[in-house]
Formats: sequence, C-alpha cells, structure tokens
Amino acid sequence: MKPLIVVSNDDGITSPGIATLIAAVKEIGDVFVLAPDSPNSGMGHAITVDKTLHTKKSHIHEGVEAYECSGTPADCVKLAKHHYLNGRKIDLVVSGINHGHNASLSVLYSGTMAAAREASIEGIPAIGFSIDDFSYDTDFSHTIPWIQKICKAALKNGIPKHNALNVNFPKKSDETIKGIKVVRQTDGFWKEEFDARKDPHGRQYFWMGGEFINHEPESTDTDIWCIENNYVAIVPCHYDMTNYEGVKELSAWEF
Amino acid sequence: MKPLIVVSNDDGITSPGIATLIAAVKEIGDVFVLAPDSPNSGMGHAITVDKTLHTKKSHIHEGVEAYECSGTPADCVKLAKHHYLNGRKIDLVVSGINHGHNASLSVLYSGTMAAAREASIEGIPAIGFSIDDFSYDTDFSHTIPWIQKICKAALKNGIPKHNALNVNFPKKSDETIKGIKVVRQTDGFWKEEFDARKDPHGRQYFWMGGEFINHEPESTDTDIWCIENNYVAIVPCHYDMTNYEGVKELSAWEF
Repeated sequence: MKPLIVVSNDDGITSPGIATLIAAVKEIGDVFVLAPDSPNSGMGHAITVDKTLHTKKSHIHEGVEAYECSGTPADCVKLAKHHYLNGRKIDLVVSGINHGHNASLSVLYSGTMAAAREASIEGIPAIGFSIDDFSYDTDFSHTIPWIQKICKAALKNGIPKHNALNVNFPKKSDETIKGIKVVRQTDGFWKEEFDARKDPHGRQYFWMGGEFINHEPESTDTDIWCIENNYVAIVPCHYDMTNYEGVKELSAWEF
Repeated sequence: MKPLIVVSNDDGITSPGIATLIAAVKEIGDVFVLAPDSPNSGMGHAITVDKTLHTKKSHIHEGVEAYECSGTPADCVKLAKHHYLNGRKIDLVVSGINHGHNASLSVLYSGTMAAAREASIEGIPAIGFSIDDFSYDTDFSHTIPWIQKICKAALKNGIPKHNALNVNFPKKSDETIKGIKVVRQTDGFWKEEFDARKDPHGRQYFWMGGEFINHEPESTDTDIWCIENNYVAIVPCHYDMTNYEGVKELSAWEF
C-alpha cells in the first residue's frame, strides 16, 4: 500500500509552491491536500478559536483529493487529521514549498512550519519545505529530486518522535545543489523598520519592513549558511520551549 | 529613575486582564501600553507582513500612555520598540494577563507568549502572564502581589538572555496560593474535535473544539501540575527550535 501523504502550506492552495510539492510527492504516495484558501504568510502557529471554519472542494490540482479552507495552516492539519481523514493513519505531512526561506527564527513566524509542527504534535512525521526566493514566479525545478529523497528517507528511517523537519532550499542558480546538511537554527533576528505614512484622511499607518541580521555568518552548521552556499538545510525542530538551563538559574531566585 | 515597562496582551486593550496587569506594574515603573484593538486569542506568533498597521491613542487606562493597534501581539511589541520608544531602553515587557492558561503547548498557540517571545528576541527581559480561568469576569485579585514579586525579581536578577518567562496562575479559590515553582512545559496535547454544522444555505462549516490530554499528570515539575495544585508556575522559554539530539540522529541518514 502506498503511504498516505497530507499536503498543506501557508501561501494558499493556488500558489505555485504547493503545486510543485504536490507534483513531487504524488510519485511517492497517495496525496490528500487541505490548504488555506488565501495567503497566510507570517501566520505563525495561529489557530482559529473564536470563528467558524469553512472548506470547499478544490479542483485546481489534478488527480488528488483537495480542499481549500478559511483557516490557518495549523487549522488545516487539525481538520485533515480529525475530520477528513479521521481514523486513517497519515504517514507523512508535508507543507510548502514556501515562497521565501524559513531559516533562522523565521521558523517562529512561519505558517508553513506551523502546519508541520502541528502534525508533529499529533505524532505524525512532518516536513516543511521553503526556498530562499520570495518571487511568485520562483523556479522550483531543482527542488523536486531533493524533496523526493528527503521524503523517502523520512518514510524509511522515521523522523524522531514529535519533531518536524525544517527544510530550506537555496534559490535556483547555474550551479547544481551541492548536497544536504543537517544543521541547527541560525542565531539572528529581524531588525524591523516601520515606514510611517499618512492615509488620504490624514491618519498615520505603518508598513513593517526589516533586514535580517545574522549573528553568526561564518558558522557552517547553520541553516542560513547552507542556503547561502547552495546546500539544502535540514533542521529537526521540537516544540518544547523550556530552557532547562534557565529552570536551574531561576530556581535560585528569591521572590 | 523608574524602569520602563511595556505592556501588551492578546485579548485586546479593553480586556480586564490587561487592566489588572497595568495596575500591578504601575507601582513598579513607568508604563507604556501598546495592545491589539481586538481579541487575538490563538494568534500564536503571527506577524502582519502583507497589510498595513494602524494605531490609535487610547484613553481607557488612566495615567499611562497607551495605544491600540490593528496588528497582532508580536506586531505590538515590534512597533513599541522600533517606533514609539525608538532609542529608549525598555527594561521589561509584560504581556497578559491572559484569560485562560498558556501552560503546556498552549505556549505555541498563545499570542500572549508571542508578545513576550518577540521581546526576548529583541534582547528585552519579558514575561507573559496567564490565569487558568477563561471567564471574562475572572477574579484576578490574588495575582497582583505575585506579579509584582516576579517583576521585581526579574528586574533585580535579570532574565537569562533571549528567554521569556511563561507565568501561569491558578484560578482564584478559597485557598491562598501556596507559592511559586520554576518548572518545565508539560508534555500533553489538545485532542481536537470538529463540530460540523450546516449554515442557512446548506453549506458545511466547523467549530473547532477539543480536550487537553496531559501525558504526565503526576509530574510535579510541570506547569499544569502547578496551576492544578494552587502554585504559580514559571517556565523560562527560549526560541531555539532545534532538536540537537535529532541533528545527531539525522546526520546518519543516507539520502
């Protein structure tokens, strides 16, 4: 029997990235798609708690059962698991391919990785795929064989329990991808700048912008280094936010 | 000089929880408030990337400078730091008090903790406060002295760099709170159930509901145990999602 693979994303069901991912995993398993009906970039691990969720059958991806959903990427995975596929064993959840990388702490803001993390919480092997190219017309062609290799390796070896893999691809270039590296989340941050403007009624509003600051550009065991040097980066991610060193440190505090 | 304390939340600027938090920290420092103009529960670490942000001066909290914002909790902290208080040293960011606990993996879905985490990314000491009571009319009175103790200890000792404290209070009861415990995130998950209904036009929609499953109800070093046993739980949280054991394990894979 072929493995059952659920596909979601955060750029929405019409994005070229999810079409590429579906094409890649259709050769490996039976595919079920449940993805947001509109872009959810920067949605992080949001879920819909105070509103209703709406779905519609989608026919834009040939040969696969697909639904579009009013909710967030994390909602989509929950709904696929607990409603549409209720009772069936899901072998793998894949999310993406995100237009724009989710390396370093973009993993926190990423809806793509929230979908994968949500699956990992449910105990389902999960992988989020992103590419270092924000363009709508991204060339994804170089990623397909690597996606297939990674999915096959994950199905064969099993992802560590309650982990989701954060996979980032370099932008397509003239050079062939050099290989895969298993690395860690880069230490860096987004230095925000707010562009303050006036609307036609004279009221102030803002556009958030910013620049990524890499605190360790020379570290070859980080995800940003990989995508900047034409490697595929894989970071295994857990969701225990506890800083155990911090627990020890704070235990000495007097309140 | 009094410390500069920024206050945000996810339930919105009109919620009783933020009013309590403002009252508690006004006695410790100079307070600046920037909070969502509407409820953002379950917003996780979402940020506003493709839309504009709007703010309005708010007069609902007496004696403090306050703004309401169309964005998410994480947006609010970014905007406070990089626009309104640009150049000033922020001594502490506090978020909450959330109506409903954010223990165990609710820390991932929580906008309250995203605001605190966003501050920790910026290198600002940060604390998110939540209470195990979802009611709008929550009695917060027992939390105020504990909030003040924790904030004072944090200002005195310094929170470990790039950490945010996840503080959860038990629901008000006849018994006095027993004390503070520094603990870890409980291993558990939300078992979702989707309530599928038909709208007046015959189309299906869903309400997400669920039940929290605690995988370790007997573990006294967890946040859920604390709030169920009338202790204040503090979990120091980092934002490195890398599972370092997983890096070792995956490095042996053949692709």
